[in-house]
Amino acid sequence: MGERADVVELAKRRGFFFAAAEAYGGAAGFYTFGPEGAALKRNVESAWRDRFALKEDNEEIAAPTIMPEPVFEASGHLDTFDDMLVECAECGESHRADHLVEGATALEDAEALEPAEIATILEEHEIDCPDCGAALAGQEVEEFNLMFQTSIGPGSGQPGYLRPETAQGIFVEFPRLKEYARGKLPFGVTQIGPAYRNEISPRRGLIRVRELTQAELEQFIDPEDDEPPLETVADVALRLYAVPDQEESAPAAEGYREVTVREAVDEEVVASDWIAYYLGVAQEWYERIGLDTEKLRFRQHLPGERAHYASDCWDAEAKVESAGGDWIEIAGISSRGDYDLSKHADGSGENFTVFKQYDEPQSVLEPTVDPDMSVLGPEFGGDAGAVAEALEDLAAHDPDAFEQEVVTVTVDGERYDVDTDIANFEVVEKTEAGVHITPHVIEPSFGVDRTVYALIDHGLERDELGGETRDYLSLAAEMAPTDVAVFPLVSNHEPLLESAAEVVSTLRAAGFDATRDDSGSIGRRYRRQDEVGTPFCVTVDRDGLEDDPETITLRDRDTGAQARIPTGELVGQLEALRDGEADFEALLSRYETVETADE
Amino acid sequence: MGERADVVELAKRRGFFFAAAEAYGGAAGFYTFGPEGAALKRNVESAWRDRFALKEDNEEIAAPTIMPEPVFEASGHLDTFDDMLVECAECGESHRADHLVEGATALEDAEALEPAEIATILEEHEIDCPDCGAALAGQEVEEFNLMFQTSIGPGSGQPGYLRPETAQGIFVEFPRLKEYARGKLPFGVTQIGPAYRNEISPRRGLIRVRELTQAELEQFIDPEDDEPPLETVADVALRLYAVPDQEESAPAAEGYREVTVREAVDEEVVASDWIAYYLGVAQEWYERIGLDTEKLRFRQHLPGERAHYASDCWDAEAKVESAGGDWIEIAGISSRGDYDLSKHADGSGENFTVFKQYDEPQSVLEPTVDPDMSVLGPEFGGDAGAVAEALEDLAAHDPDAFEQEVVTVTVDGERYDVDTDIANFEVVEKTEAGVHITPHVIEPSFGVDRTVYALIDHGLERDELGGETRDYLSLAAEMAPTDVAVFPLVSNHEPLLESAAEVVSTLRAAGFDATRDDSGSIGRRYRRQDEVGTPFCVTVDRDGLEDDPETITLRDRDTGAQARIPTGELVGQLEALRDGEADFEALLSRYETVETADE
Repeated sequence: MGERADVVELAKRRGFFFAAAEAYGGAAGFYTFGPEGAALKRNVESAWRDRFALKEDNEEIAAPTIMPEPVFEASGHLDTFDDMLVECAECGESHRADHLVEGATALEDAEALEPAEIATILEEHEIDCPDCGAALAGQEVEEFNLMFQTSIGPGSGQPGYLRPETAQGIFVEFPRLKEYARGKLPFGVTQIGPAYRNEISPRRGLIRVRELTQAELEQFIDPEDDEPPLETVADVALRLYAVPDQEESAPAAEGYREVTVREAVDEEVVASDWIAYYLGVAQEWYERIGLDTEKLRFRQHLPGERAHYASDCWDAEAKVESAGGDWIEIAGISSRGDYDLSKHADGSGENFTVFKQYDEPQSVLEPTVDPDMSVLGPEFGGDAGAVAEALEDLAAHDPDAFEQEVVTVTVDGERYDVDTDIANFEVVEKTEAGVHITPHVIEPSFGVDRTVYALIDHGLERDELGGETRDYLSLAAEMAPTDVAVFPLVSNHEPLLESAAEVVSTLRAAGFDATRDDSGSIGRRYRRQDEVGTPFCVTVDRDGLEDDPETITLRDRDTGAQARIPTGELVGQLEALRDGEADFEALLSRYETVETADE
Repeated sequence: MGERADVVELAKRRGFFFAAAEAYGGAAGFYTFGPEGAALKRNVESAWRDRFALKEDNEEIAAPTIMPEPVFEASGHLDTFDDMLVECAECGESHRADHLVEGATALEDAEALEPAEIATILEEHEIDCPDCGAALAGQEVEEFNLMFQTSIGPGSGQPGYLRPETAQGIFVEFPRLKEYARGKLPFGVTQIGPAYRNEISPRRGLIRVRELTQAELEQFIDPEDDEPPLETVADVALRLYAVPDQEESAPAAEGYREVTVREAVDEEVVASDWIAYYLGVAQEWYERIGLDTEKLRFRQHLPGERAHYASDCWDAEAKVESAGGDWIEIAGISSRGDYDLSKHADGSGENFTVFKQYDEPQSVLEPTVDPDMSVLGPEFGGDAGAVAEALEDLAAHDPDAFEQEVVTVTVDGERYDVDTDIANFEVVEKTEAGVHITPHVIEPSFGVDRTVYALIDHGLERDELGGETRDYLSLAAEMAPTDVAVFPLVSNHEPLLESAAEVVSTLRAAGFDATRDDSGSIGRRYRRQDEVGTPFCVTVDRDGLEDDPETITLRDRDTGAQARIPTGELVGQLEALRDGEADFEALLSRYETVETADE
């Protein structure tokens, strides 16, 4: 048996994914999903949509991937969406300076340091260019912005950027989206689509790419009043790797602690109920799509590692054997506070709030002034208007000042003394129906490509079957690119071909994604389907055509076991298997089994 | 009744689509699909996938949107994917020069002219800037490349472009895709995703945008041997507007002629059987998704209008009332020949052919030489090797030359005479199993955004119901963003709320996309669902809760008619309506009807 197959080689050979445009030497960080991979990716997206949009009653939108510059001025991405770049003077290759430092020192969070500090470490630790071996000491470490820039329209045009996260396409449309939600919190908006990061040095296949697919939910909440339905996931068990577990003083032996969602909240391991809720939802979702949950944990971001907007963030991490056994981030659930909506309100001057109605109208006391202009005018001339405005400001911010006989205000650096009588200060009672608040955002953000990669890595198995080594991809049925493959045992016998074609149409009509394969030995056809994760294969043979009623053989991917069942019962049996109402063991005990040596 | 509602206003108000990032003034040509529009768009994509990928047994891939420059050097887009630009000297606004000329003259195909000719027409016809009225005479007309450019990687990077059509992501991967098809023609590969065109002057809402979604099929065929299954669509009726119908000498009165697919082929209106086949498939598909086929025609491209790669092309055009009643291109079905694969073979130096096996091995006669180097060596010294190679070339291309006693070859401009005897010329018989051919491409290419727009335009209706004017969107059930909406009649009666929640879960469990709406008068709730095209509304009222068995009312969108039916029969009735096994008329005659005055 030995080692299992190489994930990247299998992915390329079987059409899951491969470096794009290889005929032209490609461009690092761009991958194409072939037929099998594109189907697996669509299945991941559908399952995500079902859980995070439909079941949560959220709405999905589709915004453009190119957005104009002011959006990213406001969001902070123009200033802060950077990685640290060092270029080798010798060979000209560009590197992530923080990654080089982390590789050569005990530092785990070099991203949090300043470029100058990184440059010093490069020098002190005598770190060399990984490509040519030349010393990097003395080379400048720069902040490199990771957004792809382009130009919209002819001529010098208008600068535009490919969105670094789908999220911004949701935030900028908040003024309209809140109308569709009829102004009521909480509500959530999702988006699935491309996002772009012009990585300095993309490596490691699908893990660090320049064009990726994100599935993101922006959950808008009133932080004072809105609670998640925590009870629905209270008993879900999580493996949490919190900040204290990551610190040298108290390292967690396993790299996580096991707690339920309820315990995580009660023991204050997770501070936000909303984050805890989505950790539970994510855990259940990963189980559903067949990720190996023995290789799943949630790691809290260290303070220096958090994005500029996040107050807390937990990454879902999958242990990926084909990436050297590393824990790879596959999702992040973060608390973005009111950062995004406030920034866009400032940047655009538009209203990014919702009106929160009080249960009952509330009366509030409002300090006011009504300055006597017939006195102020003659006294302050052209400055009288500005003095009156300054008095209004003072009343709003420091009403106590009007308890003195004279109040002093400053206009353009000059001080003006005004008799308090002239200001006509008064506290009036007003009735307010509610207040405008800026919602907070909880964001579960999933990387679709990395999820696809982790599913293949976790699913790829090798065993021995019929005396031969075989590789198979043990995907969950809901994720498998093909539900069932149908083979005529030989391809030169017309009745077999006709019968196989009929079985395929019957399966398709019943809603199964069925494929037919006539070419090569039956063993090779089984192997092909095993490697792309098809849960079941149906073979039509002469014996079966002669049976009364006609029979076919149905083969289970993971065990290679085969049962001979009446053709008329196939759809019903597959439905029962799909819906978990039957298992293959039961089938084997009920029907005649077929020797796997047939393969 | 009067006019119907404004499509663009409705689209914005109800969350179908709206100009993106309007809080920042937006960027022309970019639209966001809100919740309803994104759902409608996904439904269009799913129906397309079902017909053009699954039912045709084609494979779908997902390639990156950014591709490196050599791809577009080879494809011809860097050189020829241009529009003609003229900038106003007065106000600085940029315009499509050919569009200005078409608007001001009788010319219909100005795109086919050279920039200098267009400049002359601008001058002769005294065409002014549509924005500020200044004369455009004397302004330069330039070719403006419509690809969005960006830079991949740090530093000066590597030039990259956002793909102008999804097709290129398929063509460049042909060497691998043919392996997945096991080297056998015909096979088809599809892709659905974003494409980009940096339009000079985007106008008209969703019709001319800078970022769009395409659904494309590249059907790879052996033009000599492969035939489409024409008989499956032979009787489909098409409205064809062929080149002769468009010429002034013989204009078609209606803008089309009506023929079946079979007639179109037999009468040679459509030259390619493959194009005729996909015209039939497209016509059926448009009927399925509910486009008003009275407003659908297929128009053949005029010779000057065809893309640089196309030998024939037919556009599907929809008549769109809200676009001034114009015929708008919503798809193109073109014959791209071997242009794309040949160009990429040349550009990349890779193999873009398939091996076509002969039915039986064929023997071919091959002229060969076997030059006597013991003579050539002494005679030509260092040039002997080159002379031998030149003799081989000559044998392959001009075997008759060896009938003379002396043959002459040229190496680096110098002539060498060789005794024919020394060349050892011979014609040998060889056996060949097949030949390498470059497949031809038939491409059905669909614009998803414009399809969404046409469906809304064709579906929007106004009538009078219960004495009031109402607008409703008569979408096909398969396209409707929501299958069924459920209302408790009043929102302050707990048993009604509970019952409505239960109905929603039952519907969802049965696979219906159900939504619940508690807010506003029942009439307003009906109107809201009418405007987003929800085919059915269910209302839960007190009378129904008191009935034995319990009942709800079911309302039909297009007629507003309502029937009171037992709650337990709802799922079955909706399934029967969906599957076309029942119609609402029958329901009304079977159950108690409810007065629409209730609204």
